[in-house]
Amino acid sequence: MKRTKVVDALSSTDFGKEIIVKGWVRSHRSSKAVDFIALNDGSTIKNIQVVVDPSSIDEETLKSITTGACIGVTGLLVESQGKGQTSEIQGKDIVIYGLCPSDYPMQKKGQSFEYMRKYGHMRLRTNTFGAVFRIRHNMAIAIHRYFHEHGFYYFHTPLITGSDAEGAGNMFQVTTLDLERVAKSGKVEYEQDFFGKRTHLTVSGQLEGELGATALGAIYTFGPTFRAENSNTPRHLAEFWMVEPEVAFIDKEDLMDLEEDFIKYCVQWALDNCKDDLEFLNQMIDKTLLERLEGVLKQDFVRLSYTEGFNILKEAQEKGVKFEFPVTEWGMDLSSEHERYLVEEHFKRPVIMNDYPAEIKSFYMKKNEDGKTMQGTDVLFPRIGEIIGGSVREENYDKLVAEIEKRGMKVEQYDWYLDTRKYGSCPHGGFGLGFERLILFVTGMQNIRDVIPFARTPKNAEF
Amino acid sequence: MKRTKVVDALSSTDFGKEIIVKGWVRSHRSSKAVDFIALNDGSTIKNIQVVVDPSSIDEETLKSITTGACIGVTGLLVESQGKGQTSEIQGKDIVIYGLCPSDYPMQKKGQSFEYMRKYGHMRLRTNTFGAVFRIRHNMAIAIHRYFHEHGFYYFHTPLITGSDAEGAGNMFQVTTLDLERVAKSGKVEYEQDFFGKRTHLTVSGQLEGELGATALGAIYTFGPTFRAENSNTPRHLAEFWMVEPEVAFIDKEDLMDLEEDFIKYCVQWALDNCKDDLEFLNQMIDKTLLERLEGVLKQDFVRLSYTEGFNILKEAQEKGVKFEFPVTEWGMDLSSEHERYLVEEHFKRPVIMNDYPAEIKSFYMKKNEDGKTMQGTDVLFPRIGEIIGGSVREENYDKLVAEIEKRGMKVEQYDWYLDTRKYGSCPHGGFGLGFERLILFVTGMQNIRDVIPFARTPKNAEF
Repeated sequence: MKRTKVVDALSSTDFGKEIIVKGWVRSHRSSKAVDFIALNDGSTIKNIQVVVDPSSIDEETLKSITTGACIGVTGLLVESQGKGQTSEIQGKDIVIYGLCPSDYPMQKKGQSFEYMRKYGHMRLRTNTFGAVFRIRHNMAIAIHRYFHEHGFYYFHTPLITGSDAEGAGNMFQVTTLDLERVAKSGKVEYEQDFFGKRTHLTVSGQLEGELGATALGAIYTFGPTFRAENSNTPRHLAEFWMVEPEVAFIDKEDLMDLEEDFIKYCVQWALDNCKDDLEFLNQMIDKTLLERLEGVLKQDFVRLSYTEGFNILKEAQEKGVKFEFPVTEWGMDLSSEHERYLVEEHFKRPVIMNDYPAEIKSFYMKKNEDGKTMQGTDVLFPRIGEIIGGSVREENYDKLVAEIEKRGMKVEQYDWYLDTRKYGSCPHGGFGLGFERLILFVTGMQNIRDVIPFARTPKNAEF
Repeated sequence: MKRTKVVDALSSTDFGKEIIVKGWVRSHRSSKAVDFIALNDGSTIKNIQVVVDPSSIDEETLKSITTGACIGVTGLLVESQGKGQTSEIQGKDIVIYGLCPSDYPMQKKGQSFEYMRKYGHMRLRTNTFGAVFRIRHNMAIAIHRYFHEHGFYYFHTPLITGSDAEGAGNMFQVTTLDLERVAKSGKVEYEQDFFGKRTHLTVSGQLEGELGATALGAIYTFGPTFRAENSNTPRHLAEFWMVEPEVAFIDKEDLMDLEEDFIKYCVQWALDNCKDDLEFLNQMIDKTLLERLEGVLKQDFVRLSYTEGFNILKEAQEKGVKFEFPVTEWGMDLSSEHERYLVEEHFKRPVIMNDYPAEIKSFYMKKNEDGKTMQGTDVLFPRIGEIIGGSVREENYDKLVAEIEKRGMKVEQYDWYLDTRKYGSCPHGGFGLGFERLILFVTGMQNIRDVIPFARTPKNAEF
C-alpha cells in the first residue's frame, strides 16, 4: 500500500478506507481508554489526529512514541468528531522509524527565534518554519510562472565574476590559492589562481542580464547573490536570493506596470496557494498580515516622482513629523523611514517612486532630459521600504561612457557591457527584487535570518 | 501602439492590421523594386520578413540597416507569399534604435563554436545560442513544474559552506582576507575572516537537502554548484547548475520510479514546448536529436544491478569488444564508455543501474544486507553516460557513524547531519542531476561550455 500524505488524508472524505500515513509526532496524549497522536509530515501545517486503542498496541512501543519520533500508521480514515478537522485515523498498526530522545532541541513549544536559529537544522520541523518555507517555495514558483507566462527566459548569470565592475569593496574573494602558502612565500601569484586572476562572488547579475535581454528580448535571473557587508542587522544577509528581470524595448511607464503587475501576482499567488500557512502566521506572528497582503492588491500603486515625494516629506517635517535622518536638501538619498512614512502614513498604499536625482543612483541608469534626474523606478512597500529597485538603462553609447568616466570608473573594464550599446543598441530596462524581503513581507516574519533556511551573516556559516 | 512580439506576429492571421515589431536585423537584401529585412527579437528562432518599398524610405536610413542593427518597424501584417511562413510585414515606417558597425563579431554566419565562445556576450544573438538558451529556460521551468506538481518544496541550501564535510580538495575558498596583507604579514588569521573561519563554495546541497526532506517531506534544490577541478574538457565546468531532490519515506523502487518519471517529464516538456528550436538544432547540429529524445520516452528504462551490468560488460569484452579501460574485477568503478556501451549498444535504451559495490560510493548511501552493495540508483543515458546519481540514504545512526569512522572522516564535522538520524530518523533518498548534462542531451550540443551562458573553466572567468 502506498503512503497517503497528511494533506491528502485531511482533505479526503473516503471514510472507512484503510490508509498509511507517515510522519513526525507533534504530540502524544495518553489515557487509559485512548491515545491521541498528532502526526505531521511537512505536506501541510495541519496535523492529522491518530486515535489509538492502547490495548491494541504493545505498551512499550506506545510509550516510546514521543514528540519528534518518526512513525508510520496504518488505520482507517474516519470522520473526525473534533472541531476544525474533517478526518482522523483510527490507528491499527504503528511502525517506528526513528525514536526521539528527550534532548530533542525542538521538544518544547514556544522557544524564541534566537534559540531556534542555533538549531537551524532542526527548526525546519516546527510549525512556524514549515509555514515560512512552504511559502518561500510558493513565492519562487509564482516568480517562475509569472515570467514564463509573460515570455521571459530564465537566464543563468555567473556567480563567480572576474570583473571588478561592481566595486570589489564589499565582495567575497574566490580563490584556490593556498593561503598558508601565500603567507609563507610572501607573494600573491594570481597567475597561479584557478582563473588566472582575482575573482569574486557577484553582487548582481544585472550587467550580464542586459546581455541576455538585448538578445533574447526578455530574461530574468533568480539566484544567490553575495555581499560581504559587516552588518549584523535583521535586514542583512551575506548570501541572499535576487530576482532580476531585464526587458528590451521597454519604457518607464511599461516598466512600472511590469513591477506592479509582477508583485501583485506574487501576493495573489500566496493568498490563493498558502491559505493554511498564512492563517497560521496571521494568528501566531502578525495579526495584520492577511489584511496587509489584501491591501496591496486592492488599489493601484501610487506613482510619484522623487521630487514630489521629497516635498511631501519636507512638508511633513515642517508640520512636526520627526525623522531620525532629517529631510534636508533635494538630492539627498531617502532612507527606509522616509519611504515608510510615504507608504504607511501618507498614502497608505505602495508607491512607485521615479525620476530620482541622477547622482544618488547607478551609472547605468537612463538620464532624463533635464540632466538632473534619471529614470529609476523603485517600489516602496509597507513595513519593508524599498522592495524593488528598477530603472530604464542608458542605451546611448556616448552618454554611458561619459557617465562611467565622470564617476572615475575604468571604461576598459566595461568593454563587453558597452558592446551592447555599440552593436544594435536597444532601449531596455529592468529591476531587482530582494527575494527575502518579499518573503518577510508575505510571512510577517521580522528577521531576515528566519526566512532563509541557513543564514550566512558575519561570523556565522553553520550547517 | 504596443509592440507585437515576432512569435505572435508569425502566428497571427489578423491580416491587414497595423502592428509594430521591434528587434535585430538578421539580414537585409536590397533591390531596386523591393527590400527584404529579416527581423528577430529573441522570442522565437524564426525571423519575420519585413518587405519595404525602397522609394518609401529615406535612402540613407535604408542603407544603414545592416545585420545586427536594432530597429522598430510599423507596417501591415499580410499573408506571406513565401514558403514556410504564414505572415510577413509590409513596412511603412522604420525607426533605428541602434546601428551596427561592420566589425560586429556575429556579422558572418557559420563561425566556429570556439570563435563564438570568445564573444560569449554576443553569441546570444545567434540562432543556435538563442535556441539553446530558450530550451535551457524551458528545462528549468519543467523542473519547477514537475516538483511543484508532485508536492516537493524548492529549498535553498547555502552556497557558502563552513563545513569541510565534502572534502576541501577541489573546493573554492571564499574569503574577505586581504591576500596582499596575508602575504605581507606572513599569517592567515581566520578569526579575522568574514565568517571567522575557513569557508568554501559548496559542491553539493544534498546534506542540507536531507535536513529539509526530513522536515518538509520532499524538497528539491536547483542552483549553482562549484568544483575547482583543473579539467579542461568538453564535460567540465567550475560553476554549473545542479538539481537535487530529496524525499522522506522513499525506498529504492520508488526512487527509481521518481527518476524515470522526472526525466521523461523533462524530455516530453522539451518536445511539447520547444518544437521550433529543436527542429532547428536537429537540422543544424545533430540529425539524430529528435529521434533520440523520442526514444527516451518510448520504452521503460532498463533496471539493472551493477553485478548484472558488470557481467554483460565482461562478456562483451571476452567476445572482443575493446574498452579503453578494461573490465577487470567486480567492484571496479565503471567509466563513461562502459555505461554508454550498456545503453547504446547492448540495451539501446536508458538504464537505471543499482546496487553498486559499497566501496566505490559515498558514505551516506544505504547498505544492502549483503554488506557488499549499497542502494545507489544512477540513470545512464545515451551520449551522456551518467545523467543522474541517486541513492537511498543510510538512516541508521550507528551504521552511518561506523561508515564515517571507517573512511577516516571526522564524526564531529557531521554532528548536525547526524542529528537527522538521532532525532526521529526517517528512511529517505534522493538524487542529483547535472543540469548542463540534461541540456547537452536535449540540445544535441557537444561542449558543456556552449549550454551555459557564461562558462567558468580553468583560466576563464570572462564577462
